[in-house]
Amino acid sequence: MATHTEYLMFNTKNRYDTVHITNEVADIVAESGVIEGMCLVSAMHITAGVYVNDLENGLIEDIHEWLEKLAPFGENYRHHQTGEDNGDAHLKRILIGHQVIVPITEGKLDLGQWEQIFYAEFDGRRKKRVIVKVMGER
Amino acid sequence: MATHTEYLMFNTKNRYDTVHITNEVADIVAESGVIEGMCLVSAMHITAGVYVNDLENGLIEDIHEWLEKLAPFGENYRHHQTGEDNGDAHLKRILIGHQVIVPITEGKLDLGQWEQIFYAEFDGRRKKRVIVKVMGER
Amino acid sequence: MATHTEYLMFNTKNRYDTVHITNEVADIVAESGVIEGMCLVSAMHITAGVYVNDLENGLIEDIHEWLEKLAPFGENYRHHQTGEDNGDAHLKRILIGHQVIVPITEGKLDLGQWEQIFYAEFDGRRKKRVIVKVMGER
Repeated sequence: MATHTEYLMFNTKNRYDTVHITNEVADIVAESGVIEGMCLVSAMHITAGVYVNDLENGLIEDIHEWLEKLAPFGENYRHHQTGEDNGDAHLKRILIGHQVIVPITEGKLDLGQWEQIFYAEFDGRRKKRVIVKVMGER
Repeated sequence: MATHTEYLMFNTKNRYDTVHITNEVADIVAESGVIEGMCLVSAMHITAGVYVNDLENGLIEDIHEWLEKLAPFGENYRHHQTGEDNGDAHLKRILIGHQVIVPITEGKLDLGQWEQIFYAEFDGRRKKRVIVKVMGER
Repeated sequence: MATHTEYLMFNTKNRYDTVHITNEVADIVAESGVIEGMCLVSAMHITAGVYVNDLENGLIEDIHEWLEKLAPFGENYRHHQTGEDNGDAHLKRILIGHQVIVPITEGKLDLGQWEQIFYAEFDGRRKKRVIVKVMGER
């Protein structure tokens, strides 16, 4: 059994942002040499998420608008009594999910035709990390 | 370490549908010969999901009604400018989740008494796939 | 490859409750002797979840209030025709998620600085279980 661990770094210009990371994850899996196994992609900050969906700009905007509707910014969250203003970001991370497992088959990400991996930032403009951990057989 | 990969095929009659797949997943785990490990069950289409909950028809309808309320069909999603009409399906997949990991202990799915695995279709009437990937010790 | 499985037991005093379990999971990983791998933490009851977010009491209350808004108690769920009154708990489990995978690096939980693991109870006052399954290299 082999494992391989890397960290993707983010520092988005906007508070809310979405970054397509399929290629970065595929590169890490290739470097790992794992042929059959699984790859965990997990946001290490509690105001960011990772999800798998469509690489289509309209939909990416739809998703942000929808998250804003279900977990709005600027509400009077109790969490803000700590001095933070990002209560919505914690809830958006829960909605979108903070991690995915990508299966690896014959040395490649075994994703469906339209499946793409995204980093979803809900409180950006500072350094954040995503762990990519590969586990399987070489 | 052993791995074993299979794909479940779906082509539901209805646009929205729920298919109970616990038995199919259990069969794949049995075929794999894995005694201790994990089984990934992951929808390969971005308008479908996989979840673990109750095998109770009333609840299954409640879940669909609730998803419809939180991510309604027929909204004016930007995604529809591509010619698609399934923006809601992408959001419903996010809400329900697109994958689960089922632990395998002593050769069997280590699920709680009422835990059952479901495929959730939000844009059916065409061919779709779910990957089932088993990883562990024989 | 090594695996190690334990079960955490819960019996909360309140119907709705949140229990911080990072230390219990870390202890199980230490006992397992696994140095590089993954740890699955998964609720075995369909009215409870597991999530990773902030250990901050205000936010924990915000999360419960938010779940109550999106999946309210006391609605006329079809599931209640079975005699149950916990339809909301099934939906809340879907929203919050029922499992997480925690990466293990150099023998420790590889969590971000503020990431903490929680058990989320939505129908307590009875015995419940969470499986903690470790898989990796010793």
